[in-house]
Amino acid sequence: MVRIAIDAMGGDHGPSTVLAGADIALVRRPDVRFHLFGEESKVVPLLDGYPRLKASSSFSHCDVTVQMDDKPSQALRKGRWKSSMWRALEAVKKDEADVAISAGNTGALMAMSKFCLRTMAGIERPALAALWPTLRGESVVLDVGATINADAQQLIDFAMMGGAMARALLDVERPTVGLLNIGVEEMKGLEEVRVAGQLLKEANLKQLDYVGFVEGDDIGRGTVDVVVTEAFAGNIALKTAEGTARQIGSYLRDALGRTLLGRIGYFFARGAFQELRQKLDPRASNGAVLLGLNGIVIKSHGGTDAVGFANAVEVGYSMARNGLLGKIEQDLTDYHRAGFAREIAEVTDEGAL
Amino acid sequence: MVRIAIDAMGGDHGPSTVLAGADIALVRRPDVRFHLFGEESKVVPLLDGYPRLKASSSFSHCDVTVQMDDKPSQALRKGRWKSSMWRALEAVKKDEADVAISAGNTGALMAMSKFCLRTMAGIERPALAALWPTLRGESVVLDVGATINADAQQLIDFAMMGGAMARALLDVERPTVGLLNIGVEEMKGLEEVRVAGQLLKEANLKQLDYVGFVEGDDIGRGTVDVVVTEAFAGNIALKTAEGTARQIGSYLRDALGRTLLGRIGYFFARGAFQELRQKLDPRASNGAVLLGLNGIVIKSHGGTDAVGFANAVEVGYSMARNGLLGKIEQDLTDYHRAGFAREIAEVTDEGAL
Repeated sequence: MVRIAIDAMGGDHGPSTVLAGADIALVRRPDVRFHLFGEESKVVPLLDGYPRLKASSSFSHCDVTVQMDDKPSQALRKGRWKSSMWRALEAVKKDEADVAISAGNTGALMAMSKFCLRTMAGIERPALAALWPTLRGESVVLDVGATINADAQQLIDFAMMGGAMARALLDVERPTVGLLNIGVEEMKGLEEVRVAGQLLKEANLKQLDYVGFVEGDDIGRGTVDVVVTEAFAGNIALKTAEGTARQIGSYLRDALGRTLLGRIGYFFARGAFQELRQKLDPRASNGAVLLGLNGIVIKSHGGTDAVGFANAVEVGYSMARNGLLGKIEQDLTDYHRAGFAREIAEVTDEGAL
Repeated sequence: MVRIAIDAMGGDHGPSTVLAGADIALVRRPDVRFHLFGEESKVVPLLDGYPRLKASSSFSHCDVTVQMDDKPSQALRKGRWKSSMWRALEAVKKDEADVAISAGNTGALMAMSKFCLRTMAGIERPALAALWPTLRGESVVLDVGATINADAQQLIDFAMMGGAMARALLDVERPTVGLLNIGVEEMKGLEEVRVAGQLLKEANLKQLDYVGFVEGDDIGRGTVDVVVTEAFAGNIALKTAEGTARQIGSYLRDALGRTLLGRIGYFFARGAFQELRQKLDPRASNGAVLLGLNGIVIKSHGGTDAVGFANAVEVGYSMARNGLLGKIEQDLTDYHRAGFAREIAEVTDEGAL
């Protein structure tokens, strides 16, 4: 059994999407038990419409809902312990749930998660990891939004956490890992990326295969299983890819719709276009994982629908089932035992000479 | 007449692509005079095959060719004044040419350009600006590779230089400008981006319309005419978009090729696919501009073909014709006269309190 705590109030459409999504997820994973947190008057009447979900869920009323436009600092102030978001996280903290999921305010969720669950021993800052569809399948890309300007040690932590996530989710034993950088040949990129690269190379870790620097176009190509970067560049890469996909979709619709021949072609090839739409469906990769905390937290897109939310549940389920936290802890222990953390200071000093 | 100095040895395919491209560009712009720099034995025999180009060109022999894998520091050491790249830049410096174009080693070109042409008065660091195809037409995106970790003042310089480029190339009188940032609502992004945003807002410049922060997906949407960011995130965004476009193209080919109906559909709609291919043709946006120097320098993709190189020539032509340098200088003068530069220190101090 996997126990999933859900902030039923999160997201642009609130409980109606969240409950419908949880209900869909149950079909695939009947061994899930949900604990729903939210405003009774808004959640309970809807829940009656999903008898299957109701039978697999418990519910707790929460007076407060974190708003989508609350600032993280506001969310932490305003009676946070009463909100559905906080209560879902707290269920993980108290070991009443294995995973917490919210489609609510990202900044608030990250701030609350850090405050409630704290970072794991040996991890300074959390990272938000996304599943990125590639030509070879899927890759883990992190950080896409939690830690701006990560330093070399934090990038190495991200490499290990991303590697553990890839092992838990992508069924690879020793994932390949690349550090996102620019102009491999002629430019050297950021100092912290260089230092992290040097240390990862020397560390020669048994749990991941560090292959070196990768560039932006390697992400979609699937060159590596795990792409590591700091949150500013990572978030911009993610959003840019989403924007480019929409842009090309729009070009394609325009081009096909403009002429009769285009429309005839579309009619014949509609199966192929259906396949393309599925490949590009952002719902299929919904569910980013906040890594590095004492508990699994999944962030669902605020604007997603029930199918997308069900996918976020699936990601949380797989993480818990495959022992993500244990894998990260084991990797960190191995790493620190190997004593590579010590070298950071030395390499950085050398660089300064 | 526009005088264009060309490093004929640059690029993966060297003089054969460069000469063919220059010849194509001449058809559209017969008022161009080229000055070609390169190894006589490699360039002159080829030039005989392009009588039109030969009639519009002068040639200077250069003993040295900067190699694609030279490090920038090597390129600056190894008898740089003899190389075709350096001599093309020098022609601009001596006012023997209005523009220099090279498809050679990017890092070497940037280092040499800076060393040879120096930055304009009031500009600390150069920026590499790309034309980015969008749903609304084209936008200028900078910096895509020159100045990593640009500070607030440098970002403001980039905004003005990008604005001047948009006015010179995109036929807009007062371009809209956005600062690339992440999570507009819940996160605040980088300190230097915040400070630059506040100052641009207060400056209320007459030559550009600062609209605020934009995110990665706004680039392809064409939300603003000019997208400003530092080189690490900018280069990653550019490469990620290229990778995503290739990825979707590959999905589309696979999906259409897999079934008979898909192939029939492709046959009928091949005009539409031709149109899509043109929209996505990277050659059509080839030619990045190195801004902020005392001269116009165009970087053509090393791997492009003659059509792509011709486009880089066209970009250089338009920049010179429309007085890019004068526009940037005027904008800088207006800006400094308005006295906004002074405020940087104050705002940064406030932020620290």
